[in-house]
Amino acid sequence: MNTTHITNEDILKMESHARAAFMNSLSGFKSASLIGSIDRAGNTNLAIFSSVIHIGSNPALIGFINRPDSTSRHTLENILDTNCYTINHINEAIYMKAHQTSARYPKEVSEFDATDLTVEFGSRISAPYVKESNIKYGLELAEKLELKINGTMLIIGRVVEVFMPEYCLMPLGGIDVEKAETITISGLDSYHKTSLLSRLTYAKQDTLPEKFI
Amino acid sequence: MNTTHITNEDILKMESHARAAFMNSLSGFKSASLIGSIDRAGNTNLAIFSSVIHIGSNPALIGFINRPDSTSRHTLENILDTNCYTINHINEAIYMKAHQTSARYPKEVSEFDATDLTVEFGSRISAPYVKESNIKYGLELAEKLELKINGTMLIIGRVVEVFMPEYCLMPLGGIDVEKAETITISGLDSYHKTSLLSRLTYAKQDTLPEKFI
Repeated sequence: MNTTHITNEDILKMESHARAAFMNSLSGFKSASLIGSIDRAGNTNLAIFSSVIHIGSNPALIGFINRPDSTSRHTLENILDTNCYTINHINEAIYMKAHQTSARYPKEVSEFDATDLTVEFGSRISAPYVKESNIKYGLELAEKLELKINGTMLIIGRVVEVFMPEYCLMPLGGIDVEKAETITISGLDSYHKTSLLSRLTYAKQDTLPEKFI
Repeated sequence: MNTTHITNEDILKMESHARAAFMNSLSGFKSASLIGSIDRAGNTNLAIFSSVIHIGSNPALIGFINRPDSTSRHTLENILDTNCYTINHINEAIYMKAHQTSARYPKEVSEFDATDLTVEFGSRISAPYVKESNIKYGLELAEKLELKINGTMLIIGRVVEVFMPEYCLMPLGGIDVEKAETITISGLDSYHKTSLLSRLTYAKQDTLPEKFI
């Protein structure tokens, strides 16, 4: 195996699209989500994000990175307008439609209509869910942090409700996201399905982990 | 399909380990990385993280979430001590050893020794890499943000060098992380390999995405 050594100077010299592709791949596999939002006039919006991340369990917090200058700016505007949003897992059946939400539609066009995904409402917030998504959850805006180093925003929400197939809830509290056909993203354009290697027991100093599935 | 509706009140009532398993699964698939660090006395440390995330391409920034009260506290202490660290993709051959780094070893025990992973050094920073990892990169600490809402930290680093197999670099700048056998994590204990569904063309308003692989 030939190993390549790429320095910071090499990265800075890359053409800008190549650099974005490179850096977006470097962190490894990413979550694949559609964020649904709505403004006070009732206009819905849907946008794909690969930056959704676990922040904490108690309180129940999930975050995502929002770039103000990107096609996801309508998402942030709506969240600031109505204080809520939904996160919907992308599965194999809808990933091409999900990808299409990243096109630059004008504000008055709902990506639900443009991509033929179906609006569904929950009981606790006004933001729209994606009917075709198997695991989805609603959030209230909890904290908005500007990352001064590059002007992006970390948006943190408090989970208010979760919808998921009953058969995905595992005995010890985990969710079997693979059984829900949730997929994963690498880079800017690659979609992958997964296959379980194993689940491992809690790591302790004096023993090695064991596979319990 | 029976859909379960779980509210915020239900989540708060969960037993704490079940709640952690549930919330750590909710965001979907996560990156699988080992973070290598060193203190000024030369003691190495290695810890598994599933919270590594792309922050920006120019400058080249990658972040991760650090919980000060967890087994990863030595990582943060070392980063603050020497201002640098490495992020090493976990692959199928080493995921059980990677999982074992989450055991509570005392500060004077290096997880490299305890788990039989091999230290390797780059040319730009003092922190140790994992020889068995195929894609790995070194970072200098760039920003440390406390998330006041729950006391966790977002640690952002500037990428200073990358090591990867030459055959993983794709023509348009992306990295084929699947070809490097990088895996993905769900929840607290589940490890998955991936299989490419397709790569899609850049989304435009008037056309639908096409598969180019």
